[in-house]
Order: sequence, then structure tokens, then C-alpha cells
Amino acid sequence: MKDKIEIGLMGLGVVGVGVENALREKAADFAKQVGAPLVVKRILVRDPSKKRACQPHLLTTNPQHILDDPGIDIVVEVIGGESPAYDYIKEAVSRGKHVVTANKEVIAKHGFELLSLAAEHNVALLYEASAGGGIPLISPLRHDLLANKISAIHAIINGTTNYILTKMALEDIDFTAALREAQELGYAEADPASDVEGIDAAYKLAILAALAFHTQVLLEDVYYEGISRLAARDFRYAKELGYTVKLLAIAKREDNTFQVRVHPTFIPEDLLLAKVNGVFNAVQIDGDLTGRILFYGQGAGALPTSSAILADVIRLAQNMSQGSSPMPRVQMDQTMIAKPISEIETRYYLRMTVADRPGVLAQITRVLGELLISISSVIQKEVDERAQSAEIVIMTHPARERAMQQAVSEMNKLEAVREISNLVRVED
Amino acid sequence: MKDKIEIGLMGLGVVGVGVENALREKAADFAKQVGAPLVVKRILVRDPSKKRACQPHLLTTNPQHILDDPGIDIVVEVIGGESPAYDYIKEAVSRGKHVVTANKEVIAKHGFELLSLAAEHNVALLYEASAGGGIPLISPLRHDLLANKISAIHAIINGTTNYILTKMALEDIDFTAALREAQELGYAEADPASDVEGIDAAYKLAILAALAFHTQVLLEDVYYEGISRLAARDFRYAKELGYTVKLLAIAKREDNTFQVRVHPTFIPEDLLLAKVNGVFNAVQIDGDLTGRILFYGQGAGALPTSSAILADVIRLAQNMSQGSSPMPRVQMDQTMIAKPISEIETRYYLRMTVADRPGVLAQITRVLGELLISISSVIQKEVDERAQSAEIVIMTHPARERAMQQAVSEMNKLEAVREISNLVRVED
Repeated sequence: MKDKIEIGLMGLGVVGVGVENALREKAADFAKQVGAPLVVKRILVRDPSKKRACQPHLLTTNPQHILDDPGIDIVVEVIGGESPAYDYIKEAVSRGKHVVTANKEVIAKHGFELLSLAAEHNVALLYEASAGGGIPLISPLRHDLLANKISAIHAIINGTTNYILTKMALEDIDFTAALREAQELGYAEADPASDVEGIDAAYKLAILAALAFHTQVLLEDVYYEGISRLAARDFRYAKELGYTVKLLAIAKREDNTFQVRVHPTFIPEDLLLAKVNGVFNAVQIDGDLTGRILFYGQGAGALPTSSAILADVIRLAQNMSQGSSPMPRVQMDQTMIAKPISEIETRYYLRMTVADRPGVLAQITRVLGELLISISSVIQKEVDERAQSAEIVIMTHPARERAMQQAVSEMNKLEAVREISNLVRVED
Repeated sequence: MKDKIEIGLMGLGVVGVGVENALREKAADFAKQVGAPLVVKRILVRDPSKKRACQPHLLTTNPQHILDDPGIDIVVEVIGGESPAYDYIKEAVSRGKHVVTANKEVIAKHGFELLSLAAEHNVALLYEASAGGGIPLISPLRHDLLANKISAIHAIINGTTNYILTKMALEDIDFTAALREAQELGYAEADPASDVEGIDAAYKLAILAALAFHTQVLLEDVYYEGISRLAARDFRYAKELGYTVKLLAIAKREDNTFQVRVHPTFIPEDLLLAKVNGVFNAVQIDGDLTGRILFYGQGAGALPTSSAILADVIRLAQNMSQGSSPMPRVQMDQTMIAKPISEIETRYYLRMTVADRPGVLAQITRVLGELLISISSVIQKEVDERAQSAEIVIMTHPARERAMQQAVSEMNKLEAVREISNLVRVED
């Protein structure tokens, strides 16, 4: 039973400032809910001379001022990035401090190791803010859905790409134009690679899938593919076929295997997930008891992220102020096997430019047929008379990825095929 | 540190069977997550001769066989209804047993008293299944959103009425036809009053608002109004005006007051909430940190409800098997004042039939003008030449409910007004 809970805050960027502000402005509320005041004892910053709203004597540039302080109960890590955050978290946990982090990269890469280390030292490592920002996701997976066998997650968990895809769909513009707009509005960074190439979503998916399936998910298990190949015409075809294009993070369990992948995906336009627009995130979960549920909200930003961090801090502080033992942990199986992308089975959308002459469609469909890939529909239009070329769009029935990739490679060898413009997976 | 957790199950209807099945079929999983097996020790039933899947020697018709048994750690109440469930919960809690219940009526009417009693006896009373079925709602409000000041909840929390309203919207049919269809499919009961009149939603709203605002919400504070006055033409006008009609449960906080109300509502058709169709539920929450979030899923049914009950059971059992003190409780203020419906301010949709002659619209708008109700748009069409009548639809700007009700009453006195067909509140 502690009379106050002392916090060491590592990092005072946008999110850190949000957390520090809320801890000051809502101190009375939090003290009431916890049963003891939450006090920020030290704040690790890079540049102590910068003007800030918090008390200047709390600032330090030396991480050991937090890690060495036996009075600090909870370390909140909001530095971001793998290094040095990983080392700080590891040391904090090893020295018996609870840790709350928003660090998706560290948790995705080292979560399993760090959680075991926390268990050894009888402390908690909480990371609600690492995926989905202000949307409760980690805690529902850890607690509220624990009675379920979860079969699938379909998630829009990167706001930047969802903003870009929404723009492309609504304004019929190409990727580069939409990206530029996102950058002007501050929704995309100057170097957008981590968002646009699906890396950010891959981190978050690894975190969610591990909790959903109770197994270790290596970042190397996550297949990811970005959105930069999508063109305005893909959105037009999608619409014509009754689909919306989203960058989906997909995790599925089948018996003793699981698959985790991030890629542009055609989803039926009447799905609630298809209606999630702009920078918003949404995570759809299929459980054997609960059926299909969906969580929606802002996946990034200082305030939403601090909501998640503070929920973790309050949870820990409530436990501490009441003298409880550490929080229950999800027990992991470690026995499930990751299925490589070549082994998955899904439907495909294939767009290509071919020579506009008789017999070409027959050549293409023969390639598919020989690989046992069955066609569900074909659209041929947009003949370019000058170039004597035509555009063909094929939707397949479920096929094995390996076969589909082989088909694409063989089609590429056909003299009549000018370009395979895009291959997009479809989820129904 | 207990070597097994013993459960007394009260009630073996659809939900009880779901819970009992899952506890048997998933016993190994649950034991792993809890650290000790969960054992159903006794089951209270009305008719012990009925054929059932569970072991017959567990059945009893005597509640004292559960309440008097010092070995039983957790009582799961799934009888439903106010009496005798209320008495059983009260006795269980008073005798130091943790209680998990799905009983919205008991929690809405007696939750505050029972939670205080549980606190006195150092046990937990958990009720995740009482609102939103398989959608995690209570736990996110208790834990994950605790750092937020929640300003509003807008919820579709009754599947029966949402099914009926979806049918009316999509098939352009009237209430009675849609209700009949819902009854044929088992989505509405033979006596549909509790659902259709908004009582079920009122219970759930009282529960959610109390947790969101950290205050006692009396059931008497909840204004409710059903959907039976809605006609197919209201849906047509709604669509024309860019709205969808939903039975919304609305809770709003302003300074030291709050309002809680359930009624048919026009909501903008581009809102995610407007796209929640059929028997599905969704709860939209506005928090100061997290911004707008939304939880979506199945609000009823044996499996979704048992998912919520089992989450509560596992949570308690984890705490017990690890020798922890009871779960943190949300501290209630008790200082907020409920605002009566007459004091709310909102926009209105008003549909009426009037005599088709000059000067009638002037009379009507004069009534509104004198009560300082400002009009945002008027539609007049659908003239019935035989009856010499016309239909007028008025959308207002925000107005005080008291003024609007007075306006309706004065319009009713106008000789030219044949009928005030409907008055529906609007949320933007």
C-alpha cells in the first residue's frame, strides 16, 4: 500500500508532453481513481534548455537518474525507435520497475523476451499504446476476449496510408498526388517509407497477433507490401466490382498454423471496415464466442496515445496502491507455426496491359488454367488504339499464392503481355 | 493462492448453457490462463428433470445450495429479471462471494447499492455481459478509458429495434410489417414491448452512463421513447435530408449535469454509427484524450454473452489464483445532476398533415417563431387532393425540448393542422 506512485518519464516529444500534461491537469481525478497520487519524479530529455510547461528541475539528460532511482515505481517510455529505448526498458524491468511503453518497434521485435524478463522480475510490461493509439486493443485481447479462440484479425492500423487510400478513392487521384497532400497536412512524414511500405502496420500486427493467438510472432513472419503500386484505375475497377481498397493487416489462425500479412486488399464495400476513412483506424476481430467485433478510433496522435499510456499507468498504480500482486499475463503456447506468404490461399485481382489482338486472352487464361487457378470474372476495356493495347482485369477464385506468383511470372514471359500492372489480394 | 476456483451457476437458460458448455470444452485453456482449473460446482435450475449436457448431479433447485456453500468462490447469475436474481446477488455478495452477472435490469436498478455492498464485503461484482453482449464495453470504460473525461455516448444497444429499423429503411416498409418479420426470425419476442419501447436500451444506457461519468444514474433519470410511431415515410424524408433513423441511447455530460435518453434519432448518414445494420450493436464514445471511438459487435445471443461473462470469471479467477486483493473499482462522484428531457436542447424533425390552403405554413411557422424555434428547412409535398391535405416536414435549428413540446401542443390546436405525425430528435 503506497502513499504515492512515482513515475519516471523517458522522452518528452509530442506524446511525452501529452502524458505529462494530463498527469498534471488530471492529478486530482487520477489520485481519486488510484487511491494515491501519481507523481512524475524525473523526465529524460535530449535538450534540457528547450522551453517546456513542466517543472525544469524534473528534467535530466541522464537515463540513470531514472533507472537508478529506487523510488521510481513505473517507467513510461515514449522515446520511440529501437535504440536506446530497448536497453532502457530492459534495464528498468531487470531492476524491478514496471514499464509502460508506446514503442511498437521494441515490442514487435523484442516483446517476447522483454515480457519473459518482466515475469522473472515480477513486474509488468504494458504496451496498450503500441498498437491502435487511443483505441483499446491490447487490453481487450488480454482480458475481455480471453475466453475466445480468435480465428482472424483484419485491421486498418496505419492512419497515413488509410488517409492516402481514402483520398485516392474519393478524388480519383494517383498515389503520388495523394501522398503529397498527406505530407502537406502533416499526416505523412517527409520520409514516408515506414508508413507507406507497411512496416509500421507490420509491427502492430505482430503485436496484436501474438496476443490474439497466444503465440510468439516473429517480425520476420510478417509479410508486408506497401501501397505505392496502386493507381487511380485500380480504385475504379474495385468500385465497379463492389470492393474498396484498404491496406489491411491480416492475421489468421488455422489449426496449428497462423499467417500474418500486410498488403493492399480488396474488401467488400458493404463491410463496416470498408467505411473506415481518413486517418482513422479500425480492428475487426473474429472470435468463436463473440463473433465479429470491431474497434474504431484514432490510431495515432499525442492525446489518443496518452489515453492508452495513462490507462496502463493507472491500472498498474491501482494494483500497487492496493498492494496487489502483478497483473495476470497471457500465457503463450509457442507451438504455432507461421505460414509463409507462398502458402496462403486467397482470391486475387490482376490488372495487366496486353496487345490488342485476337487470342491474347486465351493465352493468359491458359497460363492460369494450367496452374489450376480458376477465374471468377474478367473485365476487358480501355483499349488504347494508338498503342494497340488493351487493359484486362481478372478476378480469381481462391488460389495458392505460390501458383499465382508463378502465373504472373509466366504471363510476363508472354510476348503479348506488355505489363502486369498490379496484383492485389482479395478478402471476402 | 487457490488450487481450483469453484463456480456456482445460477440459471441454465440459453446463456447459462453457453457458459457451462464453454467452461467444459475450454477447461484446459482456461486453466492455463488462470493458473488453476475453473470448476462448476453447482447449477441452479427450475426444472431438474429436463435433459441437459452437463452432469446431472450438479443440478439443484435450491439457491441455498450455492449461497450456503463456503467452497464456492464465484457466483454466476444468468437467471435474468429483477426478482429473485436481485436477492440472490445481494446474498451472495453479503456472504463474501464474487458475483458475475449478465442482469441489466438488476444492475440498472440496484447497481449502485450492490456495488457498495460488494465493496463493503471486499468482493467484486462484475457485469460486462449486462450491456453490449459480446462487445467489450464495461471493462474499457472501467479501465482503458479511465484517463478520459467522457463527454458523450451515442449507442445502438438494442438489436431487435435496430433490425426493425434496418428493415424499414432498406425495404420501405412500415413498423408493423418489420416487427412481424423480426418476430418470425426470432429477433423479436412475442411481447416485444421491452425492446420496442426502449426499456431494454434504457437499462443498458443507465449502466454505461454511470461508468462513463463516474456518477450514480437512476433509472428514473433515463428518458425513453420507442420506435412504433415511425413510418416508412419518415425514412424516406430522412434519406432525402441526408440522415438515417436509429434508436439511439444518448448520454451527454455538460459541466455538473448529465442527460440520458433513448429515442428514435436522425443521425447523419455518413456517420459510422449510421452504417450499423441488422441485429448488430455499436457504442460510440467521445473522450477528451482518445477522441471519438466506436465499439461494434453482437449485443445479444448465448455465445457473445457467454464471452463477456467468462471474461469476468477469468479476470476474477486470475486475481484469486494469484492471491491478489479485489479488483480496482471506479470511484463515483455522486455529485452530478440529471437534466430532465424538457431541458435538453437539440434539433428536431417534425412531420405533420395540414389542410391544403393558403396561409397554413404561415400559421405554423408563427407558432415556432413565437417560441424562438428557428427553422432550418421545410419540405412540403405529397398533396392529397381528395382529402385537400398536404404533408409538411420541418427541420429546426437547436431548440429547447420544452419549447418544442409547447409548439407541438399549440400546433395541434390550429384548425388547419390535421395531424402531427411525428417529432424526431436529430443528432449531428
